[in-house]
Amino acid sequence: MPKDIVVLGAGYAGINCVIRLNKLLKKNPDYQIHLMDRNPYHLLETRLHEAAARQAEITIPIAAIIHKRNIIFHLTEVIRINLNERKVITLDKDIYYDYLVIALGSKTNFYDIPGLKDYAFQLKTFDDTYKIRDNLKRAFAKAKSEKSPEERKKLLTIVIGGGGLTGVELAAEIAELVEELSHKWEIPPQEPQIYLIEAGETILPAVEKKIIDKAKENLIQKKVKISTSTKVVKMESGEVFIEPGGKIPAYTLIWTGGIRISSILKASGLEVGPLGRIKVNQFLEVENFSNVYAVGDNALAVNPKTGKFVPCAAQFALQQGRLVANNIYAKINGKPQKPYRQKVLGEVISLGRHLTLGWLALPGNKKLSFFGFLANLLKRAVSEKHLFLLWKESRHWVRAQGY
Amino acid sequence: MPKDIVVLGAGYAGINCVIRLNKLLKKNPDYQIHLMDRNPYHLLETRLHEAAARQAEITIPIAAIIHKRNIIFHLTEVIRINLNERKVITLDKDIYYDYLVIALGSKTNFYDIPGLKDYAFQLKTFDDTYKIRDNLKRAFAKAKSEKSPEERKKLLTIVIGGGGLTGVELAAEIAELVEELSHKWEIPPQEPQIYLIEAGETILPAVEKKIIDKAKENLIQKKVKISTSTKVVKMESGEVFIEPGGKIPAYTLIWTGGIRISSILKASGLEVGPLGRIKVNQFLEVENFSNVYAVGDNALAVNPKTGKFVPCAAQFALQQGRLVANNIYAKINGKPQKPYRQKVLGEVISLGRHLTLGWLALPGNKKLSFFGFLANLLKRAVSEKHLFLLWKESRHWVRAQGY
Repeated sequence: MPKDIVVLGAGYAGINCVIRLNKLLKKNPDYQIHLMDRNPYHLLETRLHEAAARQAEITIPIAAIIHKRNIIFHLTEVIRINLNERKVITLDKDIYYDYLVIALGSKTNFYDIPGLKDYAFQLKTFDDTYKIRDNLKRAFAKAKSEKSPEERKKLLTIVIGGGGLTGVELAAEIAELVEELSHKWEIPPQEPQIYLIEAGETILPAVEKKIIDKAKENLIQKKVKISTSTKVVKMESGEVFIEPGGKIPAYTLIWTGGIRISSILKASGLEVGPLGRIKVNQFLEVENFSNVYAVGDNALAVNPKTGKFVPCAAQFALQQGRLVANNIYAKINGKPQKPYRQKVLGEVISLGRHLTLGWLALPGNKKLSFFGFLANLLKRAVSEKHLFLLWKESRHWVRAQGY
Repeated sequence: MPKDIVVLGAGYAGINCVIRLNKLLKKNPDYQIHLMDRNPYHLLETRLHEAAARQAEITIPIAAIIHKRNIIFHLTEVIRINLNERKVITLDKDIYYDYLVIALGSKTNFYDIPGLKDYAFQLKTFDDTYKIRDNLKRAFAKAKSEKSPEERKKLLTIVIGGGGLTGVELAAEIAELVEELSHKWEIPPQEPQIYLIEAGETILPAVEKKIIDKAKENLIQKKVKISTSTKVVKMESGEVFIEPGGKIPAYTLIWTGGIRISSILKASGLEVGPLGRIKVNQFLEVENFSNVYAVGDNALAVNPKTGKFVPCAAQFALQQGRLVANNIYAKINGKPQKPYRQKVLGEVISLGRHLTLGWLALPGNKKLSFFGFLANLLKRAVSEKHLFLLWKESRHWVRAQGY
């Protein structure tokens, strides 16, 4: 019987991990790689905002990724992990493991704000993108024949809660969709209102000020109203309550204000920290269970240089997925594992179809900043970097396909 | 105040009706045309089977259709029609009419077969196509890692209930999707099973025998198992019961075995016949309410030549939508109305991507039959006939767009 390496979650970290493992272990019949996810596709999560506003190919079938690889895919959901018996309890079966990699990603955090969970859209899954798009199209169709000016205004008002990367990128895309829908329905373009509400002092916290300023400028150009130091405190049907500011009548609220990790991990006896992320050592091993690793959003990894926690971001998930594959391989072969060193490769923010901002790390601690329309080519290169990484591992292109 | 002409339903009949009305009345400020539908798009219903198996553009935004036309669109659902007060009660408002055209189309008829409504997929809406496709992809992903041979067989078994046009066209498309999924998941192509179950003596009843034989031959080539004179009598989770034949373990059942008209019409006091279709006279007027018309599936029109009811089919819906627009215009102008004369323009059956069968009516009571691969070009022409009709009315192309 081969030993089982089970990777939970087919996000950035999980996919990168199984592809690397497959490469390292493909001539070794003593190990079987397993991948588990609730969907039969890998979701390009950093591009969800695009699909929320227009047709965009943001899924890659798992079948295409594991084709001709020695990876068993389990389409199911985790209910609990039994660490002592080394098994994952899922909806329809138990999956036993010798090594486990937890890469389940994150969910929307509604922070128990009243009404938010019931009335707000979120942007975490492929289905969410369809719901948002469908809702906006319906809102404009309804507004067109609505006789009451108050109702019409409400239908044409969209509030985005959370001014982080997701909220900002989504606001820009939605501004473009709103322009298109206004034209289609012959609604005066000054009527629809888009609000971006951020509780912190600035949008895009932790991003360079230069980039923040450019992003703000572009959003204002796109007629997005930005309110910082403002909290969403309640949502009712058709009404968003903010502080300060009172009530905004709005048919659509999209909440991008926070993430959290599934409570299944804590309930399974794993020690967790802020957001429910699992405490790990420098090799990304879980304490007391050296055959269990956590990666990406699930791992509360520490940047040894700064002593700070590694943020939840796709680029770090990709790095960690690959590192853990290498570490499992090292452990199997009695070699020393490598610690995780956070490398910031850059920051890229897309604002609608035509504008990209950000910077990329260059050798020698240099930065290449880019603004404006000409960065578009670069954007394509960057947005396909992830696919490129997959390709590097696999030597054949895996392209995003329609689901 | 202009008089209101309200058309309920943006299907084939309703769309054709409002476009014709708009053309006839566009210089007449005394009339306002209204269109109501629960979706902000016109669905190309005769192509649902394509979208169930692959990505196909089968919706046209209402905004594109009514652009620059004097048509008010109401995105809502009918709750009841008050014939005496001449108003349509909807989810969110009352719509008053001077003339009413009922073109609400049909729903799936489950004939109270136990379990069918709960466990079977249907194929009537855009959402249905996504659900079927998603379900099949999940079934194959699950089958790949399933250890129990019984469970695996169940996952790979698809039953289509109803061997009419929809069932036959769907079976062919699904056979092609199954082939593709088998290849992707490296599942031996002889494993998946597709059953087509028809209660009547033959598939495609009322179609020419020559065409039936060709269709059968092609389905058998595609490894579809056809059972005629066989009824679906019950469905439980993962099990379809047929008579004769007993139990088929199957993860997927798609029911295309019948249609019915919404009970709202009867409940509104309209006199209805078989399937709940509204009784109409030769001008498609509703008895006792000469300002109310029914068209398409909703109208129990009689073919005066044969004395038989006009079947529910897109081509007759298109004819009736246009006729009723003309009749309303005639009535307004004190001219005589024209009776409905059923014209069969042809029958076209698509069997997957590459094969089309059928015949088209030619002048002088002649028929052009076509079989085989070369009919594909003709198929495109025919499948776009509906769009062509819209174009004829509007002088600008309305193309199917992604939703």
